[in-house]
Amino acid sequence: MNVDRDAFGHALYGYLQSAGKDEWAIVIERDDGLVDVGDTGAYFTGYADWPAHQQQALALARGRVLDIGCGAGRHSLYLQGQGLDVLGVDESPLAIETCKLRGLRQTRVMSITHLSSKLGTFDTILMLGNNLGLFANPVRARWLLRRFAAMTSSGARIIAETLDAPATQNPLHLAYQQSNRARGRWPGQAKIRVRYRNHATLWFDYLFVSREELREILEDTGWVVERLIDSADAQYIAVLAKASR
Amino acid sequence: MNVDRDAFGHALYGYLQSAGKDEWAIVIERDDGLVDVGDTGAYFTGYADWPAHQQQALALARGRVLDIGCGAGRHSLYLQGQGLDVLGVDESPLAIETCKLRGLRQTRVMSITHLSSKLGTFDTILMLGNNLGLFANPVRARWLLRRFAAMTSSGARIIAETLDAPATQNPLHLAYQQSNRARGRWPGQAKIRVRYRNHATLWFDYLFVSREELREILEDTGWVVERLIDSADAQYIAVLAKASR
Repeated sequence: MNVDRDAFGHALYGYLQSAGKDEWAIVIERDDGLVDVGDTGAYFTGYADWPAHQQQALALARGRVLDIGCGAGRHSLYLQGQGLDVLGVDESPLAIETCKLRGLRQTRVMSITHLSSKLGTFDTILMLGNNLGLFANPVRARWLLRRFAAMTSSGARIIAETLDAPATQNPLHLAYQQSNRARGRWPGQAKIRVRYRNHATLWFDYLFVSREELREILEDTGWVVERLIDSADAQYIAVLAKASR
Repeated sequence: MNVDRDAFGHALYGYLQSAGKDEWAIVIERDDGLVDVGDTGAYFTGYADWPAHQQQALALARGRVLDIGCGAGRHSLYLQGQGLDVLGVDESPLAIETCKLRGLRQTRVMSITHLSSKLGTFDTILMLGNNLGLFANPVRARWLLRRFAAMTSSGARIIAETLDAPATQNPLHLAYQQSNRARGRWPGQAKIRVRYRNHATLWFDYLFVSREELREILEDTGWVVERLIDSADAQYIAVLAKASR
């Protein structure tokens, strides 16, 4: 990723370098013109700050862990501190630089589509904090899930968080989902970009799925739902295990 | 103003209607791609929350007051509470609706360029909170100042706040100012738009001036600097009086 386009990484790196006093916010722009603001500080929180459903999910991590879209490394650092063997990957060079400065020992600058068995075999794939969204769309999700099956041990788990987007009552989101359906997209596909200061990422798709949509995606990918962990709101975490053959 | 374009007004009105619990932020976008976030709550603060230089400036208001770009009405409501005769104007219909709901008795939806002596004669023109920026550019500033001279009593004051933009050390702002100079614009001219949820204003110019630039603008407008009130940072308030003839 061109460092000028690394808006997310600049936000994380700027926050770290300024010890949280950075004056700029992360802005998330959707292609219908919606703008919202992200909380950079959330990427630097610790275990005690996290909601119960994330704490429960982290207890299921074991063995060699691949943290996809590791951001500033909060989940990776926690698991590393618990003695697990953790590799944090993020396509943002400055996010990975931030992770390194915070003490994460194994990192790679890599987009989700470049992950492969060249990285070795994993027992846990972690996609917390809505990172199931990195699947981007159902087709890519199914392709990636099959790849992940080839990169993982037989007892491996994928622990992935998303938001039940179709359940929203927000009229802005409902209108967007309707427009998605009209274009043959899934309701929870969001075309967004991240902006920070004068940095902007390219536009990219991010995917939010209902529990039913998730099961539809999983068919014939080698993965099944082992457990769903609900949160107090529309977020939930899917714990996926390998399908028995 | 088209209500869909009234991003600023939607932010104020949404904040009022949700009693400050609104989840969305005001995003300010500059034409070089810079994005920043505004604090909607600041428009609903009271006298005790304001910096000393604004409190000092408000003590100079007297007689019939015109508050230009009155926003959610914080300064107007304070002066109205002090017994002054205050008219709040804003080009945002929803900002004015917000002012009315908060108890401001005299309001008009009106852009700065439509102000005229049809509104009667004023003793104080108030442009706090960087509202000197509504002058947009030096040419329009001089035209408006002459108009204001015709709309005001002989002892009238303009109390206008701005930011000494050329004094910044921020490399992003310095680069923008350099680009302005190269295009024959004043360094402190900023082309911006306001975004809130899926609402966006049109692009407009906003002007920040140094003390020297302000004096240059005032020449032959009928106004002179009576006093400058410094703040703890780069903001300052210019108190303007009519030039003696």
